Amino acid sequence: MRLATIRTGQGTRAVRVDGDRYAELDAADVGALLRTPGWQAAAEAATADRPLGDAEYAPVVARPGKILCVGLNYRNHILEMGRELPRYPTLFAKYPEALVGGGDDVLLAAESGAVDWEAELAIVIGERVRRASTAEAETAIAGFSVLNDVTMRDWQYRSPQWLQGKTFESTTPFGPVLVTPDELPGGTRPALELSCTVDGELMQKANTDDLVFDPVELVRYVSTILTLRPGDVIATGTPGGVGHARKPARYLTNGARLVTEISGIGRLDNVARAE
Amino acid sequence: MRLATIRTGQGTRAVRVDGDRYAELDAADVGALLRTPGWQAAAEAATADRPLGDAEYAPVVARPGKILCVGLNYRNHILEMGRELPRYPTLFAKYPEALVGGGDDVLLAAESGAVDWEAELAIVIGERVRRASTAEAETAIAGFSVLNDVTMRDWQYRSPQWLQGKTFESTTPFGPVLVTPDELPGGTRPALELSCTVDGELMQKANTDDLVFDPVELVRYVSTILTLRPGDVIATGTPGGVGHARKPARYLTNGARLVTEISGIGRLDNVARAE
Repeated sequence: MRLATIRTGQGTRAVRVDGDRYAELDAADVGALLRTPGWQAAAEAATADRPLGDAEYAPVVARPGKILCVGLNYRNHILEMGRELPRYPTLFAKYPEALVGGGDDVLLAAESGAVDWEAELAIVIGERVRRASTAEAETAIAGFSVLNDVTMRDWQYRSPQWLQGKTFESTTPFGPVLVTPDELPGGTRPALELSCTVDGELMQKANTDDLVFDPVELVRYVSTILTLRPGDVIATGTPGGVGHARKPARYLTNGARLVTEISGIGRLDNVARAE
Repeated sequence: MRLATIRTGQGTRAVRVDGDRYAELDAADVGALLRTPGWQAAAEAATADRPLGDAEYAPVVARPGKILCVGLNYRNHILEMGRELPRYPTLFAKYPEALVGGGDDVLLAAESGAVDWEAELAIVIGERVRRASTAEAETAIAGFSVLNDVTMRDWQYRSPQWLQGKTFESTTPFGPVLVTPDELPGGTRPALELSCTVDGELMQKANTDDLVFDPVELVRYVSTILTLRPGDVIATGTPGGVGHARKPARYLTNGARLVTEISGIGRLDNVARAE
């Protein structure tokens, strides 16, 4: 099943996407849908009778209760950097104000001169879970989406903690759809091609089966710390190829087209705009 | 004006506290109150006709949209450690799941063996603000409260990012009241005695006028990054005297009484309990 949050004349609406048509669901966004008991059956029963056309996508969960992000998590990239594989995931936060939809502009704040891309697989939580077993962690995953953890590198490194570079307003595309694990090769540990291009030039390319901490392990780990709830998001980390590590460094400039894609899920197609 | 969120038989309720009496306000918590236009006049007009007695305090804002925390921010402590004063604040996040009320138990998760205290002055935002001027930042501060940024040190240092040690469920007392700046010496840059005791032993003592980045500057800085909204919280950092830096290190143990107090605001009085 493929779910999205689209913008209508009357605010946003959760929908089930079925090919080139969609069914409106009884929730303002996918987050509210996931908090509704029996959402799967209701979403499956709805009739996809409306043409998708050029629907405008909001962030697939409009305002997640929590967004957790994972640092270094692609095996090949860590090893090629000459580092050891980490024993524990590196976790940091992003606030919902950072999110934009799958086709929205990514805002380049005048205060930063180093806005970079980080294509990521995002986990969306579908059940309340704390201290989850592996089996419970699998069940708690409603599905997967695409997120670009756009980062102000200059602000990220102003202090030892990355948060301030990670959560500038309207910088982080998230969507366009959530795909349930049953539709993906690998299920809750999906094996999918992830890529990021800037103005058509391939910058990042990896397979999501290369994660050091896979989605089930991340849900289990995070749920040790605190309760995960429907609509919460875990962005699973980015592979090599970010602009900051290039020589010379590359950053997003006004008008740049940033395309973030995961096979089997979908594509974020955003333009960077000076604010 | 002093505001609190108390627990009643019908859920929580925002109240104005006036000596040993309180007035019930038309909001489920202080966060909801602050989102109501004209909250000051309504809160002032209410009659404090109920005895406070042994009212049970919830976190003063039950579920802040954002909680930002500041790292090293007490001048004396930084200088005595032989470090230079930072040019930018160090910011990290805490999720609302971490909060408990002013008299609640602080939960000691079995997964950590190093639970430490960090007494802090907390700013509560009262107006929506982005890229605030200094004057706008002053106006955006609804008031101040007390927060103990209780930290799992072992988890804090598992990775380069502190988040996972900072946001264990039900660890962070926040309250008991919010005091508006007009009632505090120094106003929006308050000069207040802050202290933390464990089982009656003084562990931390400082004055909040020793902050490197004062509350107005913090609101201004954070609002450059993203929009601050009513009910958002900024914890301003802790002075020296934490358990982890003692020789030998000291941590909270089952049954320990943790008292966090700021003169002119109030006192958090919590017991650490093994979960």
